[in-house]
Amino acid sequence: MKVIRSVKEMCAYAQVKRREGKKIGFVPTMGALHSGHLSLINKARKESDVVVISIFVNPIQFGPKEDFRRYPRNFSEDRRIAEKAGVDVLFFPSTQGIYPQGYCTYIRVEGLSNKLCGAFRPTHFQGVATVVAKLFNIVQPDIAYFGQKDFQQVVIIKRMVEDLNIPVKIKSLPIVREKDGLAMSSRNRYLNKQEREKARILFQSLQLARRLVEGGERRAEAVARQMKRVIRERVPEARIDYVSIVDPKSLEEVSKIKKKVLVAVALWIGKARLIDNMLIKV
Amino acid sequence: MKVIRSVKEMCAYAQVKRREGKKIGFVPTMGALHSGHLSLINKARKESDVVVISIFVNPIQFGPKEDFRRYPRNFSEDRRIAEKAGVDVLFFPSTQGIYPQGYCTYIRVEGLSNKLCGAFRPTHFQGVATVVAKLFNIVQPDIAYFGQKDFQQVVIIKRMVEDLNIPVKIKSLPIVREKDGLAMSSRNRYLNKQEREKARILFQSLQLARRLVEGGERRAEAVARQMKRVIRERVPEARIDYVSIVDPKSLEEVSKIKKKVLVAVALWIGKARLIDNMLIKV
Repeated sequence: MKVIRSVKEMCAYAQVKRREGKKIGFVPTMGALHSGHLSLINKARKESDVVVISIFVNPIQFGPKEDFRRYPRNFSEDRRIAEKAGVDVLFFPSTQGIYPQGYCTYIRVEGLSNKLCGAFRPTHFQGVATVVAKLFNIVQPDIAYFGQKDFQQVVIIKRMVEDLNIPVKIKSLPIVREKDGLAMSSRNRYLNKQEREKARILFQSLQLARRLVEGGERRAEAVARQMKRVIRERVPEARIDYVSIVDPKSLEEVSKIKKKVLVAVALWIGKARLIDNMLIKV
Repeated sequence: MKVIRSVKEMCAYAQVKRREGKKIGFVPTMGALHSGHLSLINKARKESDVVVISIFVNPIQFGPKEDFRRYPRNFSEDRRIAEKAGVDVLFFPSTQGIYPQGYCTYIRVEGLSNKLCGAFRPTHFQGVATVVAKLFNIVQPDIAYFGQKDFQQVVIIKRMVEDLNIPVKIKSLPIVREKDGLAMSSRNRYLNKQEREKARILFQSLQLARRLVEGGERRAEAVARQMKRVIRERVPEARIDYVSIVDPKSLEEVSKIKKKVLVAVALWIGKARLIDNMLIKV
């Protein structure tokens, strides 16, 4: 596995591969690799000639009071995992390499970016859209892979790629979960043993939503209310950012559940802000 | 000359040419082609295998009260001019093709975009940056050519390309002028005969600035004041948006003229908003 730290070298490498007619599959990550990332890497291996992953903890997608500094970073461990997973190139740029002195260009996907997590993290998706566009220009992938745990991120990136005519195909893969249902996330590392136990509440609340809808409940508000109730009952100390039932394309809140909806939840357990979601069909 | 109206077809054409190893030179325009455009096309012909020009009057770079509707459009004349100039592909997309229903992604080059013209046209450069990024993704040029009359535009596009790692080389060419000094511009078509005569004042004021600096004047404010005085004396009905002396890279106003500066002027004559500029060395 090749490790590339220079933006220029990564561009040059990608250009050579593209000229050779090689198909580049790309998995952008912030490191702290887990099985969710591995499912993306495996898919990329199946569908492309060259698999590139990036590890870059992107400062501009963190708010001033968020966890940028303490976000888990373990390069040697990630490198080992990536190599074992069959990654061809690990792109590991510096912050300075991605945002040199004087950097000032930002991409904003209006509308979609201020819903759900965007309401609580006002510049988050601008940071995500910007770095993903940059990484696409640097890595020049044919296909890029994203996990559905960050459902809103996928919707926004697909929209950006379509809007800006970026010649990359976006694929999203299902959430990978621990045995007890907790969605894989680098931020799960923030949880101590007791918090880890309590974190099961996210998936449990989503399962409740599914049971309610399957049982005939069509009022989104009633489903959300019950979800919040069960969260408050079982984990009183959890701080809920949102429990939302939205259209999976527009991310607009729905009132009646008439067709497929996205049920999404974000809450704090201790110092970890955790998110999860489920697509529920009627 | 091939005329392509479909975005998809343009992408496919560009991809084929890129795969063949052909170098694509690109001149994005809003049509109403004049000798300024021709100088860009000629340069592109010299430096590339395939010359693509686009004609697209970009609605999102016009303010609500600006001249989008009456901007000069004459496709058959432009087509004739482009063909004669040796253009290989004329890309002529529809507004719907560039901004389909639901479009919502915008690129902003912070800081640079609110100076000079940006102070008077608050969303103009966001519109420019966005459409240029889109056109680059569609046309996939190796080199793109811009005229220095829109100096701020060139600075912003260069910054965007560098910031977003867009794999396109930006070249800018000197202003092409009429015999009496008026900078070539599609908007000169708005001028009646008397206004056309008065429009000479832009270049005359820039020449005055150069004489003053050559004569030893180093106070930017004094140069600007004299320029405004001569404009008001000779063309009292001209409405001045700005007369500015700025650093050519940061576009920040300078107070002392110590090294090369950009002297830029924007004013209204009748219904035409005209701009011009000059780089002046010390």
